[in-house]
Formats: sequence, C-alpha cells, structure tokens
Amino acid sequence: MKTRITEAFGIEYPIFQGGMAWVSEAKLAAAVSNAGGLGIISAMNLDADYLRGQIRACREATDKPFGVNIMLMSPHVEEVAQLVMDEHVPVVTTGAGLPEKYMKQWVPAGIKVAPVVPSTAIAKRVARAGATAVIAEGCESGGHIGELTTMALVPQVVDAVDIPVLAAGGIADGRGIAASLMLGAEGVQCGTRFLCANECQIHENYKKKVLAARDIDTQVTGRRLGHPVRGLKNPMMRAMHDMEYDSSKTNEEIERYGAGALRRAAIEGDLETGTFMAGQIAALVKKEQPAAEIIREMFAEAEKLLAEAPKWLA
Amino acid sequence: MKTRITEAFGIEYPIFQGGMAWVSEAKLAAAVSNAGGLGIISAMNLDADYLRGQIRACREATDKPFGVNIMLMSPHVEEVAQLVMDEHVPVVTTGAGLPEKYMKQWVPAGIKVAPVVPSTAIAKRVARAGATAVIAEGCESGGHIGELTTMALVPQVVDAVDIPVLAAGGIADGRGIAASLMLGAEGVQCGTRFLCANECQIHENYKKKVLAARDIDTQVTGRRLGHPVRGLKNPMMRAMHDMEYDSSKTNEEIERYGAGALRRAAIEGDLETGTFMAGQIAALVKKEQPAAEIIREMFAEAEKLLAEAPKWLA
Repeated sequence: MKTRITEAFGIEYPIFQGGMAWVSEAKLAAAVSNAGGLGIISAMNLDADYLRGQIRACREATDKPFGVNIMLMSPHVEEVAQLVMDEHVPVVTTGAGLPEKYMKQWVPAGIKVAPVVPSTAIAKRVARAGATAVIAEGCESGGHIGELTTMALVPQVVDAVDIPVLAAGGIADGRGIAASLMLGAEGVQCGTRFLCANECQIHENYKKKVLAARDIDTQVTGRRLGHPVRGLKNPMMRAMHDMEYDSSKTNEEIERYGAGALRRAAIEGDLETGTFMAGQIAALVKKEQPAAEIIREMFAEAEKLLAEAPKWLA
Repeated sequence: MKTRITEAFGIEYPIFQGGMAWVSEAKLAAAVSNAGGLGIISAMNLDADYLRGQIRACREATDKPFGVNIMLMSPHVEEVAQLVMDEHVPVVTTGAGLPEKYMKQWVPAGIKVAPVVPSTAIAKRVARAGATAVIAEGCESGGHIGELTTMALVPQVVDAVDIPVLAAGGIADGRGIAASLMLGAEGVQCGTRFLCANECQIHENYKKKVLAARDIDTQVTGRRLGHPVRGLKNPMMRAMHDMEYDSSKTNEEIERYGAGALRRAAIEGDLETGTFMAGQIAALVKKEQPAAEIIREMFAEAEKLLAEAPKWLA
C-alpha cells in the first residue's frame, strides 16, 4: 500500500507503532520497523542517558527508519530534544503539548516530525511549523487523550491541513485501517494492538489484562486535572475516578496518588495500584503474536476490504 | 446503495435520521423519508396525544416508511409504546435504556425495532429479543451518549451480532458513511447534519450555533449523574460542568438545574440557559439545505470513495 505516509517516511506499510511510556522500548520499535512499519521508542519522562541507550539498541536491531516519541511535559524534554538531533533520529513524534519551539531545530536538522494533535487548530500550527505529517488521535485511544474521537477528528484535520494525516485511536485491525483511509487519512498509528506483540516487554499481567478486556473495560481518569488518561478498569482507576468527584481532594493530592502507576503496571504488573493504559479497542486483541504478523494480518484485511469496496455500489 | 439495512427497512439509502428531542418532528422525518432515508419522529418525554399528532402529520406528508424513537426513560413510555402498535408505525428505535420488555409486543406486531446500543452486551440482548438491526452509537454524537466511540464500538458490535448494524456518531458526510461500511456497518444514523435541514423546525439561533461550531466546541455534562449529554459549549453547559465537580451540590440539584434546557434551546433559542445538543462533527455542517440534498450529497461522496477505494492497493 502506497500513500504519502509510506513515501515521506520511507516505510512499506503506512503504520506507526505508538510511543507508549514504559511500553515502547527499542525491542518493540525495532520489530515494527523490521516488519515494514515505523517503530517508535518512547522517551517518556526519563533522561537522555536512557533514551541514548534505547536509540542505540534499536539501531543494533534494525537498519530501517524508526522514531522517538517525545512527551513534551517531561522534566527532561530539553535534553532529549537535543539528543534526537545528536543521534540523527529519522523521525520524532510528540505528545502532551505544543512542539513548535523544538521543531525550529528539528526540522532544519532533517528530522521528520509528526506531532500528535487533538484539534484542527493545533494541526494547522504544527503544519505551519514544518511537520511532515500529523497524527490525529481520537480519545478512544489508551493513555493521555484529547476530547475528540477518531471518527470526528480525522476528517476535520484532513480538511484543515495539506500534509498527510495518520489516524490513531480505536484502530486494531484491517477494518480500522480501511475506515481511516475513507476518512481521508493516509496511515494509522496503533498502540493497543502492539501491547500484545511478542517483542513488547511489558509484564505478563498487563498482556493478560488486555487479552481479557471487553469493550466496556476501559475508563478515563484525570478529566478534572485537565489531562485525561484512558486505561483498563481496576482498583487504581476506580479510586482515582472517585477522588476526582470529591471536591475535598486537591488536584495535587490526586496527582500524587497517581504517581508511578504506569511503571507499576508495565514493569511490576501490579494489578491493584498500576495504571494499565489501553484503548477501547482492546477487546479486538485476541492473542500474543509477533509484531510482523500483526502488521501483515491488519494490512491483508484492509487490502481485502478496499479491493471489495465497490461491491456496495448498487 | 443496497445493504441489509435498505432491504430490511424498505428504504433507498441506508440512512436513518436520528430521533432528537424537540428536533425530530414530523416535518423533518417526512422530508427524510421522502428523500429515500428513514425519517424518525422523537416521542421524547411527551405523551401519546403529542405523538399521535406527529405520526398523523408524518403520514400526511409521506407514504414512505418512517420511524418513531422512544426514549425509555420517558414518564409516558407505557402509553407511547402502546401507541406505536395502535398506529402501526413501521419502525421503532429506542434509546436511554433496555427495550426488551416492549419488544415482546412490538416484534410480534410486525414493528421493525432498531435499538440504539452502547455496548456489545446490550447489542446481543436486543438481537436475541428480535431486533431487526442495532444502531451502534459512539459518544461523539450529540445528546445522550455512551462511553465508546464509533470507531471502537462499531466493529465490536458487528462481531457480536448477526443482524445488520447502523453506525452513528461523528458521521456528517460521505467519508463517514464509507468509513462506517469499512467498519462492518451497513448503514448510518445521522443527527447533527440534519439539524440544519430546511425542514428542521428548530430555532434559528440553534442552526446558527451549529453552523458556527468548530471541532472543539462541544462539551459533555452529566457524567457524574450517570447519563452524559453532549452539546455545544455555552454558559449553561459550563455551569452544569462546574456543578458536577462541586461535591457540595447534590445530583438532584444538578438535575433540576438542567430541567427544560433542551426545550429552551430548540424552541426559544435561548443562548444562555438552553442546551444545544450537537455532535463533535458539527463543524462539517456548512449550510442550511433541504434534507433531500443532504442525503444525495452524502451518498454521492460515499459512492465515489467506495468506487475509488482500490486505488490504495499498490
């Protein structure tokens, strides 16, 4: 499948693997890149030493393009923003903020930038700042989310900018890819489906929880704090949710309560106090399998649907 | 376009016009049915006398199939549930609850029932109870909403039931229709796009507000009460939202504060204290035009996208 996304990023399939904190490590990213997608390492809220190690591990495992996701609220954002230039990382995606300040350096340095955008206004801003593409991510996705859904956001972003758009949120099979193309996107970014890739090194409890998830098993917390997060329902998510509706609790208390929960989920598999980020499409993840098989399966299904689409015309 | 939806409901285009309280009156429903879709009258929370008048007005204006949407939380649900049988209404859609109790009478009476469902579990229940189709409605839609988005909900419901599925939420043009078909739906239900149909008799201020809406201009209130509602941001929505995060306010106080707000929006055009229900796709509504033109435009675009879909295969 050829789109402006495959051309611009030099990849075989128009699919990015989302940058997920404590999940998207070099091993998963390299596996996705080797399979013809764009693997992405998450810089999360760790420092340049961590990221340097990940970038080098990824380069040892693949000679294909890969990316780094920079979380703009990270306390180490300045040093990791510099590191991706020093290391000549081919692609940077950004989340949780406005990347223009950093794009002023990245774009002239030849880094292809694809920010995650929650609205048309932000899509237009990053397009003006030289983005190669934008990732229009709907609130059905796991992790930090915006307000708009994929179905509503993607066509509006497509109308707002001339650069190619990747759809993200709620996509875990070929139907989601084919639907995204109909909405005007030219590629997709998937997170949840890759949680159960063999190469994904999260705790076994996390994978089990994703495999057991039903459609209604995710929940959003953090709306009151202004940065909502979607994850799988568990005691931690329920406690956070209850605290938000208790106005005797300060925002600082709630933040403190949630601190470290992602790590506890992904590394320790702590079912009680971890936050297991996953999207509403988790129920479509049926088994653990190699990243390459995930990508081949998804695109085989999408290609069949697109080839057969004219059947609907009476 | 022929799908199991057009066949089962005897309509030319697989599109339902959503049943919206204070919006979906006989004039709009008849216009949609005359244009080859399925027009739907909202029974909202009014009594059988109101609905009887609407059904008869619709029948005077069209000889095509039409439907009635029954809001199961209505204080008059028993009498309107009986009335649709007495009046031999061809189609009933339901919202805000479980319709099985009423389906026991409707289905044997030959009424085709298409409940709005927010999850796979409820889709399976109504399919067992004899539904002709289900409407999988994502939370990007206006009015009362569930938790799942269209992109996430539709494929999961398609996998869960054998009856045909209509996608709803976030669909206002041909891209949304084509995407819905890729997700496995065989039709769509649209609400927001029909708000600005010429035949829609809502207050001019309401139409203006929809035409002026940007992507980020909707807001959800009522999450704390367990029945979230999406509408266009205004002083009323902001006040409701603030009350929800104030635990000194009881749920009853919040409910009381919101009472009558839909009517004040649709009939009086009260920009301060009305609730202007609309979906996240409102920004795609660009002008007031006849319902027939809306439908023709949407399907012309969808058909073009489906015909050209094989172009994506390299």
